[in-house]
Amino acid sequence: MPDTLTDLVAELALANRILGHEGVLDAFGHVSVRHPDDPGRYLLSRSRSPLLIEPDDILEFTLDSEPVKPPKALLYAERVIHGCIYQARSDVTAVCHHHAPAVMPFCIAGKPIMPVFHLGAAMGEEAPFWDQYDEFGDTNLLVVKQEEGHSLARALGSHSAVLMNRHGATVVGSGLKELVSRAIFMCQNAEYQLRASALGAPEPLHRGEIELAGKISRLPTVVTRTWEYWSMRLQASGAMPPRRRAAKSPRPARAAARGRSKTRKRR
Amino acid sequence: MPDTLTDLVAELALANRILGHEGVLDAFGHVSVRHPDDPGRYLLSRSRSPLLIEPDDILEFTLDSEPVKPPKALLYAERVIHGCIYQARSDVTAVCHHHAPAVMPFCIAGKPIMPVFHLGAAMGEEAPFWDQYDEFGDTNLLVVKQEEGHSLARALGSHSAVLMNRHGATVVGSGLKELVSRAIFMCQNAEYQLRASALGAPEPLHRGEIELAGKISRLPTVVTRTWEYWSMRLQASGAMPPRRRAAKSPRPARAAARGRSKTRKRR
Amino acid sequence: MPDTLTDLVAELALANRILGHEGVLDAFGHVSVRHPDDPGRYLLSRSRSPLLIEPDDILEFTLDSEPVKPPKALLYAERVIHGCIYQARSDVTAVCHHHAPAVMPFCIAGKPIMPVFHLGAAMGEEAPFWDQYDEFGDTNLLVVKQEEGHSLARALGSHSAVLMNRHGATVVGSGLKELVSRAIFMCQNAEYQLRASALGAPEPLHRGEIELAGKISRLPTVVTRTWEYWSMRLQASGAMPPRRRAAKSPRPARAAARGRSKTRKRR
Amino acid sequence: MPDTLTDLVAELALANRILGHEGVLDAFGHVSVRHPDDPGRYLLSRSRSPLLIEPDDILEFTLDSEPVKPPKALLYAERVIHGCIYQARSDVTAVCHHHAPAVMPFCIAGKPIMPVFHLGAAMGEEAPFWDQYDEFGDTNLLVVKQEEGHSLARALGSHSAVLMNRHGATVVGSGLKELVSRAIFMCQNAEYQLRASALGAPEPLHRGEIELAGKISRLPTVVTRTWEYWSMRLQASGAMPPRRRAAKSPRPARAAARGRSKTRKRR
Repeated sequence: MPDTLTDLVAELALANRILGHEGVLDAFGHVSVRHPDDPGRYLLSRSRSPLLIEPDDILEFTLDSEPVKPPKALLYAERVIHGCIYQARSDVTAVCHHHAPAVMPFCIAGKPIMPVFHLGAAMGEEAPFWDQYDEFGDTNLLVVKQEEGHSLARALGSHSAVLMNRHGATVVGSGLKELVSRAIFMCQNAEYQLRASALGAPEPLHRGEIELAGKISRLPTVVTRTWEYWSMRLQASGAMPPRRRAAKSPRPARAAARGRSKTRKRR
Repeated sequence: MPDTLTDLVAELALANRILGHEGVLDAFGHVSVRHPDDPGRYLLSRSRSPLLIEPDDILEFTLDSEPVKPPKALLYAERVIHGCIYQARSDVTAVCHHHAPAVMPFCIAGKPIMPVFHLGAAMGEEAPFWDQYDEFGDTNLLVVKQEEGHSLARALGSHSAVLMNRHGATVVGSGLKELVSRAIFMCQNAEYQLRASALGAPEPLHRGEIELAGKISRLPTVVTRTWEYWSMRLQASGAMPPRRRAAKSPRPARAAARGRSKTRKRR
Repeated sequence: MPDTLTDLVAELALANRILGHEGVLDAFGHVSVRHPDDPGRYLLSRSRSPLLIEPDDILEFTLDSEPVKPPKALLYAERVIHGCIYQARSDVTAVCHHHAPAVMPFCIAGKPIMPVFHLGAAMGEEAPFWDQYDEFGDTNLLVVKQEEGHSLARALGSHSAVLMNRHGATVVGSGLKELVSRAIFMCQNAEYQLRASALGAPEPLHRGEIELAGKISRLPTVVTRTWEYWSMRLQASGAMPPRRRAAKSPRPARAAARGRSKTRKRR
Repeated sequence: MPDTLTDLVAELALANRILGHEGVLDAFGHVSVRHPDDPGRYLLSRSRSPLLIEPDDILEFTLDSEPVKPPKALLYAERVIHGCIYQARSDVTAVCHHHAPAVMPFCIAGKPIMPVFHLGAAMGEEAPFWDQYDEFGDTNLLVVKQEEGHSLARALGSHSAVLMNRHGATVVGSGLKELVSRAIFMCQNAEYQLRASALGAPEPLHRGEIELAGKISRLPTVVTRTWEYWSMRLQASGAMPPRRRAAKSPRPARAAARGRSKTRKRR
């Protein structure tokens, strides 16, 4: 885990861009992380496409998804997804909501994604479906109300991901790097499962294999290796996030950031 | 909306390149915008591949698709698509004709595209088909005669898009940015629908969802966010359009452009 | 048509790279052009991957596919494809043999490609199949013997393209730019036809449409526009061919090349 | 074959990156080569994503997959795949284990890949399946124990590749360049076979064709041409491996490397 809030904010910007570059996020979708010092808060960007997010875009929210400071920019309409899941799942420290092309056919056809190769086990045995229409009737399909967020969190239950009919998916993790790996592996799994279905009805891993292989994706060695790989790819594309802008005060940026963070919490 | 004709011309060149870069347009296809000061005219590039279009390529046409000034370059053969739709639809201020790979399977198989995810609702409940053969028999499939353009406009009716059998699609909007979003979202929708059909027969959004979700894609916040994202992607590829060439007169480029535009209208 | 042999050689190198960059050629495949001053000869690169070909790699061959000068480098094993077609078809001035991913499913499944959209009409009404096994039994599937080349040319007949079972395709044209357009449009057509077949059994254009739309792809305006577009894409990727190396003599490169060409013919 | 160990180490780093760039390897997968001077040893990178591997990452292993020198970095968990195959197959001098998207649908559906085009014959007549579950029950699907490696090597038998259910593939060769070509051609073949299956049930090459065409991919001319092509593509992407870091001793790098290699063998 990063050792300061500044580092975590930088990692969150990087996570957004990695997922944007690897085809999980596009103009839409977002990633958040629980505040390391205060489990009652989470960090999320202002409303912006993930590949453009900078550390300075990251804001702090309560678990009711209210910004801790009065916002100077537009916020994501669907941030209740994050707040409601952090409320329901104390083990979760990172959340990603996305509409990746790899999962959309399953969200549209209403067919389950199941782990079909060893890395796909990162998603767990199953990802339940949540259909907003069932409880809320006709909506614009965005999850914007607290009750919609809570309903989605209930559907997620103790799983690692939930599929949202005609909309997308939400994935959770116990760390940013684990979350990023899981989201990417699950997309690869969905892609392979779709293509395998052209050859015959694919079967999932054996139950014991899912459990054993699922642990691999959470190993620090795996998570470190994939993070290095995806960061390199992002860097090669010229899209690494800039550093946080220099603080106005003469203090070094890091100390300043720490200071700002304390100030915020006092509010 | 851009506040001067020069800005709108620049935005039109950018719209062409964004759609070229996002895989909606390729060597062919074109985007036009209605003249902001004269609803009886529209702006369209000379005949050129969209990713190459510069502000200086943009010409002014009457709704009969005649160039206002004698042209010095080749014109698109199919510009009647634009003129006829502007005649028929006073609410339309931007038109795109394309042969995107995502829609072609549907145009070839004659199967309807229907909104299958929230952003796909940007296309509306349905996109009617128009088969040039039905009214005109054997043609080269290009829409070049006024009566062909009018026939296509009738098929479009009050919809946001029309599919052209064995040819492509034409999409309309009440603004350039809305049009660009709609064209891209509709292609994503078609792609997901095709892939979902490998898993089972996909169902469209509920009717109420289409209406409610359809409004999202027209929200200024959405349109601004996607425009920023697609522009960034275009810029990262090194393909941003150049600015308008400096006028020969010593007047600043913007004033000069305004002047030229006035001159044109006097003709 | 380019006005000197030097220009044609440069255009041939560019054609190779455009087709390499647009996904028609990869490590393999080749493009040739008939000698502009001597219909009994053709120009083809030494054995090299198309995206790497430079003007200095282009060599001159008789229609028996023998190099006019003793070669200093390896030659393509399958150059009889070119020689035999130039012998059989006086109207053909350019030939491309390829294994494009878009056509391979059809060459493998033995299912015909048919024009399913207006630009696909560039391939003509049909592309016959040629199975090397039928006449020659077990081979390594390469077309290396004169009799194999003649057999392929017979199967091509008066068509614009021939599909080679379990191997690839050969496309011909009455000019390099026409050939490049036809090869690319035919690949797009194959790709759309394959994808459309997931939605239902696609139908070809009406016969009259094929003839009328087929003429479009040969229009100088179309051929010029697509050539500009594909060249721009190649340039953006940094892969434009270098110019011919300066001649040792003090004469300007162009004159020198012309001189060399005359010298060659004297042999 | 490279003439010094230093050259072979550089070639191994390059092979890793070529396969990473051509979509055979991603964050995972690895390539090894048998030690040119000692058939009882092989060379393999420390645990790292293939596109990042540098000559300095390459380590020496015994055929029991033990590092010859105490390692300073993490090692691949699955290196027994390499050691066990080198033990079983004296004709094999290069091994690649991968999870390429092209082969995964077959590994998941349990359907055989068969040579369907001339270059696909590089894989030989068939690639047997190996299901880790059959002999070892529930595992994490990684091949980490000696007995798992030996079981996989037995399944490979005298073939050129083995498919691993719900996991990936392992390919072997009698040289690094042959291996790289085979791995890439087999992926192309799998991709074409999958797509052809949408048109009908594809048939393999005739048995005699497989043998004759299979020899093509091993010809030095072919292997040299494809290696040049893939290297050029890697270079164009800016991802060529760096050279070995200068040795601390004043000896030139090459001599120093040779010296180090001798030292190692003395251990």
